[in-house]
Amino acid sequence: MVDYVGIADIQHLIEEIGAGEFMERLAGQIESDYKRWGEFEKSPRLASHSDVGVIELMPISDGGLYSFKYVNGHPKNTGEGLLTVTAFGVLAAVDTGYPLLLSELTITTALRTSAMSALAAKWMARPDSKVMALIGNGAQSEFQAIAFQRILGITELRLFDVDPKATAKIVQNLRAMPEMRNVTLVRATSCEEAVRGADIVTTVTADKRNAVILTPDMIQPGMHLNAVGGDCPGKTELHVDILHRPDVRIVVEYEPQSRIEGEIQQLAAAHPVIEFAEVVRGAAQGRAAAGEVTLFDSVGFALEDYSALRFLHDLIAERPEFCRQIDLVPEIDDPKDLYGGTLGSGKRRAKLRRAA
Amino acid sequence: MVDYVGIADIQHLIEEIGAGEFMERLAGQIESDYKRWGEFEKSPRLASHSDVGVIELMPISDGGLYSFKYVNGHPKNTGEGLLTVTAFGVLAAVDTGYPLLLSELTITTALRTSAMSALAAKWMARPDSKVMALIGNGAQSEFQAIAFQRILGITELRLFDVDPKATAKIVQNLRAMPEMRNVTLVRATSCEEAVRGADIVTTVTADKRNAVILTPDMIQPGMHLNAVGGDCPGKTELHVDILHRPDVRIVVEYEPQSRIEGEIQQLAAAHPVIEFAEVVRGAAQGRAAAGEVTLFDSVGFALEDYSALRFLHDLIAERPEFCRQIDLVPEIDDPKDLYGGTLGSGKRRAKLRRAA
Repeated sequence: MVDYVGIADIQHLIEEIGAGEFMERLAGQIESDYKRWGEFEKSPRLASHSDVGVIELMPISDGGLYSFKYVNGHPKNTGEGLLTVTAFGVLAAVDTGYPLLLSELTITTALRTSAMSALAAKWMARPDSKVMALIGNGAQSEFQAIAFQRILGITELRLFDVDPKATAKIVQNLRAMPEMRNVTLVRATSCEEAVRGADIVTTVTADKRNAVILTPDMIQPGMHLNAVGGDCPGKTELHVDILHRPDVRIVVEYEPQSRIEGEIQQLAAAHPVIEFAEVVRGAAQGRAAAGEVTLFDSVGFALEDYSALRFLHDLIAERPEFCRQIDLVPEIDDPKDLYGGTLGSGKRRAKLRRAA
Repeated sequence: MVDYVGIADIQHLIEEIGAGEFMERLAGQIESDYKRWGEFEKSPRLASHSDVGVIELMPISDGGLYSFKYVNGHPKNTGEGLLTVTAFGVLAAVDTGYPLLLSELTITTALRTSAMSALAAKWMARPDSKVMALIGNGAQSEFQAIAFQRILGITELRLFDVDPKATAKIVQNLRAMPEMRNVTLVRATSCEEAVRGADIVTTVTADKRNAVILTPDMIQPGMHLNAVGGDCPGKTELHVDILHRPDVRIVVEYEPQSRIEGEIQQLAAAHPVIEFAEVVRGAAQGRAAAGEVTLFDSVGFALEDYSALRFLHDLIAERPEFCRQIDLVPEIDDPKDLYGGTLGSGKRRAKLRRAA
């Protein structure tokens, strides 16, 4: 039997643990996995593009555990009442090739993306950062707010979206959270207003085009930019001149993938960037001076899904009530007798039927 | 909710329909999908190798439906009481990116591999073929026997395995099947003896090395060779001189993958081979003369898993009792409110909980 974490299980789990604690602990897992970056077999995601979207497989292995995520991206889905992004993933044992855990990753991807954002900011933002502008108030936005409150100690959130209903939605959702009671929520009337004076600027917009959410005039020395929404070819959020500032420090997850998908797709291939693993391993600084502009050019890397699946797998080992089991793989006595053990008659078959 | 076909479901389904009918209908699906070969976006499988095995992802899309299979290959597993190969797969809608069906594919892969073997033989073997040698009596062997009895009308099976217990097992399993009552089962004492006078020779051995199961002296004019076991780099079953016979006709599934994994990995890259799609589309012959030696160099291609998942999906649409449903993807009213719709409080959340 294979462990299964479905939507009801992750809801139950977050209800018990809280999204903030979940993301804080997951950030710890991601950080420790990035510290052993060299142990991972990495590859850019395998994408199947159509006119209306993309379906991707994101595999990774550290030689002990293998994971992959299935994820789609269909911006037009929201117009049909469907999610832009859905995802699920599997953790497997490299030694046997058997799957260990199948999990929903739609909700978990939102949690891991924000855990990763806050983790990067912990290494890159000024330690006294208190004010965050949150540009784009869609599906990912509440998760970013919770993670930055919990992990960075943000006390003021400046919210802006071109759609005022989206901002109304995040305000309503955040107001219902006990952990947000001491966080000032400001509804800005423009992106400029939201960004002005912010320590951290998080962009999580959904438009699939080369948008210019942030322009050079909005950027102030010492800011940390958490650019989450620019995450596929032709989809960026920052004006290219921000990337060319002499005082900007650009950190990415996995350079070969970010060159294709990140804000840095706007730069020449030789333009120097830092991989996040170098930062957590002490080979590079996340921030060298209080006046630097730091940019985490996030696109989402398979390692973070590996970390999330591993974290979930460890969690359900302690708390089996947060998962179910499914019969995705046969269990038979004689592995050379697949037919007899599964479809034939006899004792082995009977045993299997009882277990199912 | 996503349709789910687990081990118990596929057992139930095969019990009702029968493995022979399942494979015959699946062969029809595979054939019709190969006929529209040009519509598929194809790529060689994405493999992650370790010292003890391999884990692979096999995606494919025809622009309407996308599928992928997860499959491992760990020959040492049998020594630990585990299966060498386990698999599962997903069928998804290209238009929305949403998964439609998650299915076990360990048993289904055995069924589709044999359905494909028999389908290829239907186009390639002499129409009067009655005697099949079955070399290698492991996990895949019963499925081959059933498919060739059902689809080709084989009346005599010559069984050989280096392990006499494997042969005893297949004999026991086949003797219990009503459809095998009129099939003569012969336990051969050597591979040579099994092959001598056979119309069709099926090799399904498991050794992960360049083995020489069939040597040139065993091959007689008019034979059809169904080489199933040579299916990854360094794993072949045929002496290379068989491939160099002037009267041999070699058919493969997807040439770029077969060059790496099939018997033809032993040949120069320019050595001409025929793709099976050319045969079913009438662009090439499966057999040009009764005296030709035909070789189906099977490695298993993603299209066949697509066909299997699609066939299952159509089948459970008619017969919903053969599947269950799992909450792999959230269902929410407002797709821009992932947090509120899944983790927050309120009506939408309550609705989702009731559905789970």
